[in-house]
Amino acid sequence: MACPMGNGVCKAGKAAASNGTSSGSTEKGENYWTYLHLDKILSAQVLKSGAAGEVVHDEHLFIIVHQAYELWFKQIIYEVDSVRQLFMTEKLNERRMLDIIKQVNRVVLILRLLVGQIEILETMTPLDFLDFRDHLSTASGFQSLQFRLLENKLGLKKECRVKTKSDYAAPYGDHPELLAQIRDSEEQPSLAQLVERWLERTPGIGSRGFNFWERFQGAVKTMLSDERKAAEEMTDPVQQKEEVEMVSRRSALFDSIFDVKVHEALRARGERRWSHRAFQGALMVSFYRMEPRFNQPYQLINLLMDIDELLIKWRNNHVQIVQRMIGSQQLGTGGSTGYQYLRATVSDRYKVFLDLFNLSTFLIPRQYVPPLSRAMQFRLSHSISLGAGEAHELLYDSSHSEGEGEDGELAEETASAPGEVEGAAASS
Amino acid sequence: MACPMGNGVCKAGKAAASNGTSSGSTEKGENYWTYLHLDKILSAQVLKSGAAGEVVHDEHLFIIVHQAYELWFKQIIYEVDSVRQLFMTEKLNERRMLDIIKQVNRVVLILRLLVGQIEILETMTPLDFLDFRDHLSTASGFQSLQFRLLENKLGLKKECRVKTKSDYAAPYGDHPELLAQIRDSEEQPSLAQLVERWLERTPGIGSRGFNFWERFQGAVKTMLSDERKAAEEMTDPVQQKEEVEMVSRRSALFDSIFDVKVHEALRARGERRWSHRAFQGALMVSFYRMEPRFNQPYQLINLLMDIDELLIKWRNNHVQIVQRMIGSQQLGTGGSTGYQYLRATVSDRYKVFLDLFNLSTFLIPRQYVPPLSRAMQFRLSHSISLGAGEAHELLYDSSHSEGEGEDGELAEETASAPGEVEGAAASS
Amino acid sequence: MACPMGNGVCKAGKAAASNGTSSGSTEKGENYWTYLHLDKILSAQVLKSGAAGEVVHDEHLFIIVHQAYELWFKQIIYEVDSVRQLFMTEKLNERRMLDIIKQVNRVVLILRLLVGQIEILETMTPLDFLDFRDHLSTASGFQSLQFRLLENKLGLKKECRVKTKSDYAAPYGDHPELLAQIRDSEEQPSLAQLVERWLERTPGIGSRGFNFWERFQGAVKTMLSDERKAAEEMTDPVQQKEEVEMVSRRSALFDSIFDVKVHEALRARGERRWSHRAFQGALMVSFYRMEPRFNQPYQLINLLMDIDELLIKWRNNHVQIVQRMIGSQQLGTGGSTGYQYLRATVSDRYKVFLDLFNLSTFLIPRQYVPPLSRAMQFRLSHSISLGAGEAHELLYDSSHSEGEGEDGELAEETASAPGEVEGAAASS
Amino acid sequence: MACPMGNGVCKAGKAAASNGTSSGSTEKGENYWTYLHLDKILSAQVLKSGAAGEVVHDEHLFIIVHQAYELWFKQIIYEVDSVRQLFMTEKLNERRMLDIIKQVNRVVLILRLLVGQIEILETMTPLDFLDFRDHLSTASGFQSLQFRLLENKLGLKKECRVKTKSDYAAPYGDHPELLAQIRDSEEQPSLAQLVERWLERTPGIGSRGFNFWERFQGAVKTMLSDERKAAEEMTDPVQQKEEVEMVSRRSALFDSIFDVKVHEALRARGERRWSHRAFQGALMVSFYRMEPRFNQPYQLINLLMDIDELLIKWRNNHVQIVQRMIGSQQLGTGGSTGYQYLRATVSDRYKVFLDLFNLSTFLIPRQYVPPLSRAMQFRLSHSISLGAGEAHELLYDSSHSEGEGEDGELAEETASAPGEVEGAAASS
Repeated sequence: MACPMGNGVCKAGKAAASNGTSSGSTEKGENYWTYLHLDKILSAQVLKSGAAGEVVHDEHLFIIVHQAYELWFKQIIYEVDSVRQLFMTEKLNERRMLDIIKQVNRVVLILRLLVGQIEILETMTPLDFLDFRDHLSTASGFQSLQFRLLENKLGLKKECRVKTKSDYAAPYGDHPELLAQIRDSEEQPSLAQLVERWLERTPGIGSRGFNFWERFQGAVKTMLSDERKAAEEMTDPVQQKEEVEMVSRRSALFDSIFDVKVHEALRARGERRWSHRAFQGALMVSFYRMEPRFNQPYQLINLLMDIDELLIKWRNNHVQIVQRMIGSQQLGTGGSTGYQYLRATVSDRYKVFLDLFNLSTFLIPRQYVPPLSRAMQFRLSHSISLGAGEAHELLYDSSHSEGEGEDGELAEETASAPGEVEGAAASS
Repeated sequence: MACPMGNGVCKAGKAAASNGTSSGSTEKGENYWTYLHLDKILSAQVLKSGAAGEVVHDEHLFIIVHQAYELWFKQIIYEVDSVRQLFMTEKLNERRMLDIIKQVNRVVLILRLLVGQIEILETMTPLDFLDFRDHLSTASGFQSLQFRLLENKLGLKKECRVKTKSDYAAPYGDHPELLAQIRDSEEQPSLAQLVERWLERTPGIGSRGFNFWERFQGAVKTMLSDERKAAEEMTDPVQQKEEVEMVSRRSALFDSIFDVKVHEALRARGERRWSHRAFQGALMVSFYRMEPRFNQPYQLINLLMDIDELLIKWRNNHVQIVQRMIGSQQLGTGGSTGYQYLRATVSDRYKVFLDLFNLSTFLIPRQYVPPLSRAMQFRLSHSISLGAGEAHELLYDSSHSEGEGEDGELAEETASAPGEVEGAAASS
Repeated sequence: MACPMGNGVCKAGKAAASNGTSSGSTEKGENYWTYLHLDKILSAQVLKSGAAGEVVHDEHLFIIVHQAYELWFKQIIYEVDSVRQLFMTEKLNERRMLDIIKQVNRVVLILRLLVGQIEILETMTPLDFLDFRDHLSTASGFQSLQFRLLENKLGLKKECRVKTKSDYAAPYGDHPELLAQIRDSEEQPSLAQLVERWLERTPGIGSRGFNFWERFQGAVKTMLSDERKAAEEMTDPVQQKEEVEMVSRRSALFDSIFDVKVHEALRARGERRWSHRAFQGALMVSFYRMEPRFNQPYQLINLLMDIDELLIKWRNNHVQIVQRMIGSQQLGTGGSTGYQYLRATVSDRYKVFLDLFNLSTFLIPRQYVPPLSRAMQFRLSHSISLGAGEAHELLYDSSHSEGEGEDGELAEETASAPGEVEGAAASS
Repeated sequence: MACPMGNGVCKAGKAAASNGTSSGSTEKGENYWTYLHLDKILSAQVLKSGAAGEVVHDEHLFIIVHQAYELWFKQIIYEVDSVRQLFMTEKLNERRMLDIIKQVNRVVLILRLLVGQIEILETMTPLDFLDFRDHLSTASGFQSLQFRLLENKLGLKKECRVKTKSDYAAPYGDHPELLAQIRDSEEQPSLAQLVERWLERTPGIGSRGFNFWERFQGAVKTMLSDERKAAEEMTDPVQQKEEVEMVSRRSALFDSIFDVKVHEALRARGERRWSHRAFQGALMVSFYRMEPRFNQPYQLINLLMDIDELLIKWRNNHVQIVQRMIGSQQLGTGGSTGYQYLRATVSDRYKVFLDLFNLSTFLIPRQYVPPLSRAMQFRLSHSISLGAGEAHELLYDSSHSEGEGEDGELAEETASAPGEVEGAAASS
């Protein structure tokens, strides 16, 4: 870099701002080199081909590319951990949504950079790679702990992974602290789980008060009935039959979300991931995304899908480059090759936020979307950002002044707003 | 990363291929973690804000971004050094042109990545930056040794740099080896100088043989004469006057390259950088780029301009982000701010290959371009990739079979082909 | 494209959804070709070189690139017009902020695409361009009406433009309707003006109630006093003098925003653009961006800076490619060349949202930022999205229940919230 | 755009350069608007939602994105046609290789742009899309004639396409000329076929002369023998068995290219596409890419793989966006959905240059690669760019002076050089 960001700032100001603690460190002077620990960073490129007697020019690139990946992985994990932490606080202050959006957006931008970065690695040719591949012995990207950490923290479950004979952990026998990180990442709540819980608290999906789900079911019923009528009125008998069948299929499709048992069956098969209630929350946010309190939850939902998409692109990139570097052709006899393994990971199995992608199947045209009640509209127009007790008090007053007689709605739903978290205790 | 490139390769094969030396290292097993020295890479992020008592979330990104820049700078320097080395060998084998093109192209791709990477840093807001800026004390991107190394190795001269009061070297008092690198980079032949020398050897620009420059001057004369005639024949007197003047200006412009004294005067003022002969070579390559031996020199010329352009974009990006982060407004009184300094570096002064950009000014329409002689066309159809002695012998034979009587042309020009380097001794 | 988005949709459903009006058009069948008017789009590439006798291969690219630019310009203008319309409605419902953010973000993404697109044009070489440049006669990108429209609609003022002898409008003599569009764009409120007015209504900047400006001035005073004290306590006399001067300069700098006269003087010189009150609003949004109601205004501010930055990058790209294609060297005598004209447009003069960039100069460390009052915090936690009358009523109630005795604050400020627009009538 | 490329050019010069034919057209004045036919381009956005009564904001974007795609498709087809034309000329002059590389590289850059462009379409949300999807009736990207043309011209065979019930041609009943273009594209030689033929002429693969294939088979035999020996010498019996098996599998794999029958069987199954001889040529170019005459063929091979990779990325992008826009979930009963169809196209079946990707499987370490004979090295050091007769004569002379006694090699191989095309007739 060459940006003198630190330049031209008043030193006295700094001293004052940091309460006079700008002691020795300023004197001695931290500088660009020491601050970034460039001694470590720039001494970490040791070419195996060089050690073996003859430097292969392209190995340097190979090392740098992977180190750059790992640096960015660290950053992504840092952001994901921060977002998880924010979601884990008992009472999520909506004032933190801006931070959440910002940090998740940053993950998206970094992943986008990494997806593009492959282009640089592609300037290495297969023959160049062959020249030093031997020296890598068993080192393999499959062993990237940080990538596995990242997948786990996002919410990729063991049972969704493609089975392999290789053990990614084998080389870490001497690093119990690293393996412990992996174990922790498997046990701690993942981002997907935290978002699921948060969506379950979406205001308005409870059975009391606005009761979104009942209204939505009614709306779908009306829509399907209209569609069936239109289909039956068709004059061409062939087309009529076809269309009536189409409506029946759509009807069955909607049953898969209205019938909790079907939902749970699909969940058991891994085709859905989240609870029925979280699904309701996500759908409600989609329909009423214009309401101020749903703006940012809606942005978040889209960013989470971006993450899944970019990881799929990332995996697809790797399939391509592996095929290009070491070929994909194999004569049936052998075990699964690196290419085939990677090919299998470019799949919806690896989508952590799969349910969000499925939402679109169940959207209905605007004219059928149930209108918000005035009370609901009011609730979605403001945020709960004060201390829980105060907020409750204020809202309670407001709700009374509305006088819609939806008793208890607010009390119930206050406890389940996405973007806010208020324990039952706080609101009672 | 997650690419199991090392997977599925036959270990015995490796052993054999590396002549049985796959001893202990394979046994003990180099792995992804140790190979990439991730212990160093991933322990180099130490937040100053954390040390000062309260972690500022965005400082982590700030560190990672700059470390990623430095990793890539190291790669760029590695490639530039390799290309310089290739150009410095006494006899540049044309078989190495593919490597040169590949490595310079890689530099271009990396710079393009870095230009885009700024977008990630922009997710940090000015207030976030303000939160930890104080902790950076005097650390400044201005102190990046690698960036300065890179500029020097490309060919940025001291006298072209914007003057500053700050001394980039101040913090490196304890690192004489780093300062030595900088000094070396100022003294060793830069890429720009090496390309200049190589262009001076372009086949066909000598006064014997094809004598491009004389033919080109003739062509320009014809063209200008045609233009003047056309201008004078215009019926509208105002337009006529204007056009005649325009032709005169163009004529004067061409004189600036035909008259060596004018060229040298412009060079003294920094408006041109290269020798007159190198300029001739570059122009000749541009005109006859379709000839097989000029294909890759032409590609190279374009990639070198890409480098300059991307560095300008990089500098412009930094102007923008500095303005965004710390503002640009200043009330006249003070010294040059970081913003103003950076603003001044977005300039043709910092273009190392400025002469290549100027080439376009002197291109002439295809119908005026002097046609190649058969001998010249033949010479540009093959490369000198054998040992110098052999090549000369073969070419000499061939030249005789041409029988164009351009005695000595080949002998003279063989010694000056861009893409080949053969000392006078070798060809005599 | 090849995405069968229209596939698999139930036709009967469509018919029903569109209330049975899916008459003839469905029968006859709109299809991909007719829907996109590809007969027009794909017949608009007429090569001048072809008409003149010999097709120059690269002219096709030249045309396509510019047509793609113009298509995207149309989209950008469409979005900017939509955002302007939203800002112009008498009562901006905060529920529309999601739309505004989305549309402005789209403009940013398109500009980013266009900035990258230049790379494709760079595959054309100067000699290729020379081959057909003659056929273009006076056609010049300078004549792009849409680009001028876009600049005007964003808010570029005539007096900020670089003066040229050429008249962009000359070729449009036969198209009065196009020239009328330009005139309208100069007269109608630009996006910059509308944002200025909206920022002037930021809640909390009025002199009654929270009175941000007074509190901010107090905070700066404290900060500068601390800094001065720290400076004076320095032991090294040279450094002490330097630091004291630095504090004085900073103090003078802050005076430039506290003293309305200085602000207006800078405005007259074009160094600032917006009213003093709008500047206050932007600064307040920056400081309290975490508050729910300021989240999106803050996002918007950042996106507007992105637009300016990308337009600067776009202009810089053009400087580079013009230099590459036609050269920049000129022998003093002549008038301003295309290169020099373009070079001059890469400047802060062309930044429409310049004031936003200047904000950073005046940010102060978090510990000095005035804390929000409870009433202010409450006001920033909810949006005004109901009908104006209702909202006022509800808020009024709430404000009473706050009982902070900041009489009139809400009434006053409700009428000036960025993100909401409620006429004086509504709130009285 | 706003680039005054046409500015500042001497009009008289133009007149002269175009031989005084700058008649009426200059007088009347072509300008930016008329040259680009912006009346057509900018009037082609007709919103169906608007026609139906209420404009849906996002439909405008939907139209523009697809029109931009189609513009670029036209450009890609233009370049692919040009490259095909160059390959189809009976005698491909190697001086055209620069053009071929440039044009194929341009296709790559455009595809890269299009892959990134999807990001803009993703700013449209599923609900927005639902708002106007009904109005599209049966219009579907599946109907893009240009995309199908492009696939055909590249070389995608009918039998490799995923079967669908839909008929892409249905809507073009009224446009016989468009359907004729499709038919032609299926019958004319595709780029893949032309490259195949060109690779079959690679110098050095004939059975006379250098005889690459025989030498390569020998080299592989040696390598496998070394590997087997190393495997057998392993001390750990389990590992020994495993490694010996691995060598056997590799041996069988190489047999699949050495045994023409196996190759043809794989070809019949679609796992390989090209003739055995073309495969040899591609492999030879890969091994000896440093030789001057193979530099550009090698660049070309890499660019062709880029095209395949980018098309796969493009298709994958569309899978993602379709899932996001209309969902992927379907309850088993129905026919193939758009999503499932698209999912199936992200496959090696759609890779036109599949054989190039498979090359890597058969690369061998540098120490085993057969060294070039001096005669072969000489032949690869120069190009055949003169008229065929002359070239032959010159080469013949040279070959005699080599005196390696590889009779007939040159005559035979001259007729099969990739990068040159000289019919047997011409060289005899």
